[in-house]
Amino acid sequence: MTKHSPLSDYRFDPETSTDQAHVALVALEIERLLHEGDQSAVRDFLAGQELADIAGYVEELNVGDDLAAMRLLPLHDQAELIAYLRPSSQMEIATRMPRRELAALMTAMSHDERADLFKQLSDEAQEAILPALTKAEREDLRRLASYAEWTVGSVMTSDYATLSPDMTPTQALEALRSQALEAETVYTAYIVDQSRHLLGVLELRDILMARPRQHVGDIMDREPIFVRADAEQEEAAKLVARYDLIALPVLDGNDQLVGIVTADDAMDVHEEEVTEDFHKGSTIGPIETSVSEATIAVLYKARIFWLVLLVFGNIFSGAGIAAFEETIAAHLSLLFFLPLLIASGGNAGAQSATLMVRALATGDVRPSDFGRLLGREVLIALALGLTMAVAVSAIGVWRGGPAIALVVAVSMIIIVLAGALIGMCLPFIFAKINRDPAAASGPLVTSMADVLGVLTYFTIAAALLDV
Amino acid sequence: MTKHSPLSDYRFDPETSTDQAHVALVALEIERLLHEGDQSAVRDFLAGQELADIAGYVEELNVGDDLAAMRLLPLHDQAELIAYLRPSSQMEIATRMPRRELAALMTAMSHDERADLFKQLSDEAQEAILPALTKAEREDLRRLASYAEWTVGSVMTSDYATLSPDMTPTQALEALRSQALEAETVYTAYIVDQSRHLLGVLELRDILMARPRQHVGDIMDREPIFVRADAEQEEAAKLVARYDLIALPVLDGNDQLVGIVTADDAMDVHEEEVTEDFHKGSTIGPIETSVSEATIAVLYKARIFWLVLLVFGNIFSGAGIAAFEETIAAHLSLLFFLPLLIASGGNAGAQSATLMVRALATGDVRPSDFGRLLGREVLIALALGLTMAVAVSAIGVWRGGPAIALVVAVSMIIIVLAGALIGMCLPFIFAKINRDPAAASGPLVTSMADVLGVLTYFTIAAALLDV
Repeated sequence: MTKHSPLSDYRFDPETSTDQAHVALVALEIERLLHEGDQSAVRDFLAGQELADIAGYVEELNVGDDLAAMRLLPLHDQAELIAYLRPSSQMEIATRMPRRELAALMTAMSHDERADLFKQLSDEAQEAILPALTKAEREDLRRLASYAEWTVGSVMTSDYATLSPDMTPTQALEALRSQALEAETVYTAYIVDQSRHLLGVLELRDILMARPRQHVGDIMDREPIFVRADAEQEEAAKLVARYDLIALPVLDGNDQLVGIVTADDAMDVHEEEVTEDFHKGSTIGPIETSVSEATIAVLYKARIFWLVLLVFGNIFSGAGIAAFEETIAAHLSLLFFLPLLIASGGNAGAQSATLMVRALATGDVRPSDFGRLLGREVLIALALGLTMAVAVSAIGVWRGGPAIALVVAVSMIIIVLAGALIGMCLPFIFAKINRDPAAASGPLVTSMADVLGVLTYFTIAAALLDV
Repeated sequence: MTKHSPLSDYRFDPETSTDQAHVALVALEIERLLHEGDQSAVRDFLAGQELADIAGYVEELNVGDDLAAMRLLPLHDQAELIAYLRPSSQMEIATRMPRRELAALMTAMSHDERADLFKQLSDEAQEAILPALTKAEREDLRRLASYAEWTVGSVMTSDYATLSPDMTPTQALEALRSQALEAETVYTAYIVDQSRHLLGVLELRDILMARPRQHVGDIMDREPIFVRADAEQEEAAKLVARYDLIALPVLDGNDQLVGIVTADDAMDVHEEEVTEDFHKGSTIGPIETSVSEATIAVLYKARIFWLVLLVFGNIFSGAGIAAFEETIAAHLSLLFFLPLLIASGGNAGAQSATLMVRALATGDVRPSDFGRLLGREVLIALALGLTMAVAVSAIGVWRGGPAIALVVAVSMIIIVLAGALIGMCLPFIFAKINRDPAAASGPLVTSMADVLGVLTYFTIAAALLDV
C-alpha cells in the first residue's frame, strides 16, 4: 500500500459521524486493491480497524467486493461484523454466500443475531441452511425465532454463561474462562439447577472478591431482577436501565432460564421506543422496519389515520369561523391576525405537551406532580402570553388601529394560556386513563388550541367591536 | 414486622413504573416503624431491596426520617444510594449531615458522583467539607469539578482500574481483585506508564482467556478508542454506543489518562441529548436542569424566543389572507375550510420533518440519502393528499357546493404535497449548512406550510370561482 493511500490515515470522527465522503474514498481504495489482487494490503488495513467502522466500508462496496472483503477477516470477526450491517445488507450478503459458508458463519454468530438473520431469510433459504447446522443450533434457532415481535423473547440471546452453586471462586473463574469465547458476556453469570431453574445471579466482580473457601451458592444474589420471555421488550429495557444491569435474565412460565437481554440490546430496544415516541409526537403510527427501508405503503399507513382524523377535528375551527361570518364581514381586517393567533396557541401548547411527555417518559415528572406543575405552567404561560401580546399589539395598531390592537392583544394572552394548559394537561389525562402520554402530540394539541383560538378571538372581537 | 405489612409484598413493577401509591405506602410504613423504634425491621426490609427502589422510598420520607433510613444501610450502599436521588434531594440530605459523616460518605462515593454533589453544595458547605477529606480526594474533587458543563470531563470518573504491561494474567487478576472495591468497573482495565500516558486497554474477558505465559502488554489493545476531556460529552456517548464499549478512556491534551466514561454515564448523557432533541422539535431551547426542577424564569427563557419569532413568521400568512380580501368577501364560505387546509399541510409537514430528523439522528438515514428518499416522499405525499382530498370534498359539497368542493380538494392535494416536501427538505438543508437538523421543528414547518397553504388555497379559489 502506498504511503498516501486514504487507508493509511483514516479514522472515524465522532463529531461528523457522517463523514461519508471519506468512507466512500476508503471503499473505493479497497475495491481498487482487491481488483489489483493486493488482498494482503486490505487485510492489513482491516486488521487495524474497528468492526463498526468496517461495516461502514462494506456497506459502500460493490456487490461481490463486499463479500470478498469480509472473507479477509477471521470467521469470528465476520460473525460479529455481519451484525453491524443493515438488515437488508445482511440478507443480501447471506443469500449470495454458499450454503456451507453461511452455515459456518451462523454457527459463529451470537445466538440472537443469527436468529434475527434467519427470520429474514426466504423460506427456501431457511430450508437450505437448516440441514447444515447441528441439531442443537437448529433447535436454538427455532426457539429464538418463535417469539413474537415486541416481546422480550424476540430480543434475548441464549448464549449466556452458567455456573453451579457448589463451585469455588477458582472453579467458577475456570468455568467462565471455558465459556468466554461462546458467551455473549461473562461479566454476569447465571446459576441454574439441572432443569435450568434460575437459582441466582453472580457478577464476575463478586467472584474476584470472594474468599477462596466460599462457594458460588453462598455469594450469589438469590433474588435477582428478571423478566418473562413473553413480556414487552420495553420492560426489559426499563429494568436494565433502572438497575444498571450488564444483562437481565429471562424466564419462561416455568421459571426456567431461557435467555438474557444484554445492556447493548436493551439500549437498542430503548432507542426503538424513543423513535416511536418521536413519531407519536407527530401523529405517526408504529413502523416495524427502519424509516430508511420502509415502503411507501408502510409509511402511508402509518401517517394517514391521524391526518384524516385531524381534518375532521379542524371542521370545528371552520364551524367556529362560520359562526362569526357577520363579524368577519364587518371587519375583514380581523382575518389578518387569525393565522398568527391560532398558531401561537398551538405553538405554546406543543411546547407544553413536549415538555411533559418527555419528562413523564424519563421519570423526571410523575403523574402525581400534576398539581405542583400546573401553577408553574399558568405563570409561565401568562408571562409568555403577555410578551407575545406586546409584540402583536404593535402590529395590531399598524394594521387595524387601537381597537383591533386591543382585541388581538387580549386574545393572544387568553389563547396562549389556553393552549399551554391544553398541552400540559393532555399528557397527564392520557397517563391517568392508561394511554401513552406520547399520544398527546403536537398536531392534536394544535388542533384543539385552534378551535379555542378561533372562538376566543371572534368572541372578543364581536364583544368589543360590534357593540 | 407483621405479615401484612406493605413491606412484605412490595416489588417494583416495570409495567407501571409509576406505581407511586405503593411507594408512598411503603414510605409511610417505614416512617411508622422508625417512630416506633423498630429500626431492625426497616433494616431487614431495606437489605432485600435494590438501591434504585430504596431511593424511591427515601424521596418520599419526611425530613429526618430520610436520613434515619439511609443510616440503616452500610456506608458503601449509602454512597451508592445517594447517587440515585434527585440532585435537589441529594443536596438537601447532604446539608443536613454532620460534616464528618458527609466526609465519610463522600469518600465512599464514586468519584464522578461525589464531584457532582460537591459542585452543588454552597460555597460555605464546600469550604466546610474540604478539610475533612484527604489531600488526594481534595485534588480529585477539584480537578473533576473544574471541567465545564457539557464537556466529557464533567461526566467522567477517575476511579478506574489500571494494570502494568509486564503483568501475567494471574498478576493482572490479582491487581484487579485489589482494585475491585474502589474502581467503577474492573471489566475494562487501563495500562499506563509512570506518567499516566495511556499505553493500551484490556478487557477482563481477554485476561481470562490469555495463556499463562503471556503478558498484559502482549494482549492489550494498543490503539484503543479514546476521547479528549474537553470534547463535548455527546461525543463520548456516541463512541460508547458505536463501539459497544463498557467504558471509554479520557485523555487530556498531553495524552495522559484522566478518567473514564462508563456505559451507564454515557447512557445518561445520551438521554439528555435525546431530551434536547425532543425539546428542539417543539422550539424549546436548552434547559440546563431537569424540567421538573426548572424555575419559571428558566422555562420562560427557553420558550419565548421561538414563540415570538413565529408570531412574526405568521404575519406572512395574515398578509396572504389580506391580499385576497375581495375573493373572501365574495365567498365567505371559503373561510370554513381555511383552518382545515392549512392545518393539514402543517400536520403532514410535521410528520415528514419528524421522520427525517429522527432518522438522521440515529444514523438510519444519511444526508446523501436525500435524493433516494425525495421520490418516495413525493409519492407518499400524493397518496396522503388524494385520500384527504376525498375526505374533504364530501364536506365541501355539503357546505359549499361542487365548485367549492373542487377548489378545496385540489388545494388539499397541493398543500399536503408542499407541506410534506418542506418538512422533508428542511432537516437536510439544516444538516447541509451544519446546523442541527432537529431545529427543523414542527412549529417552524407548520408556519412555513401555513403561508403556502393560504396562498395556494385563495389563488386556486380566485382562479376557479371569480372567473
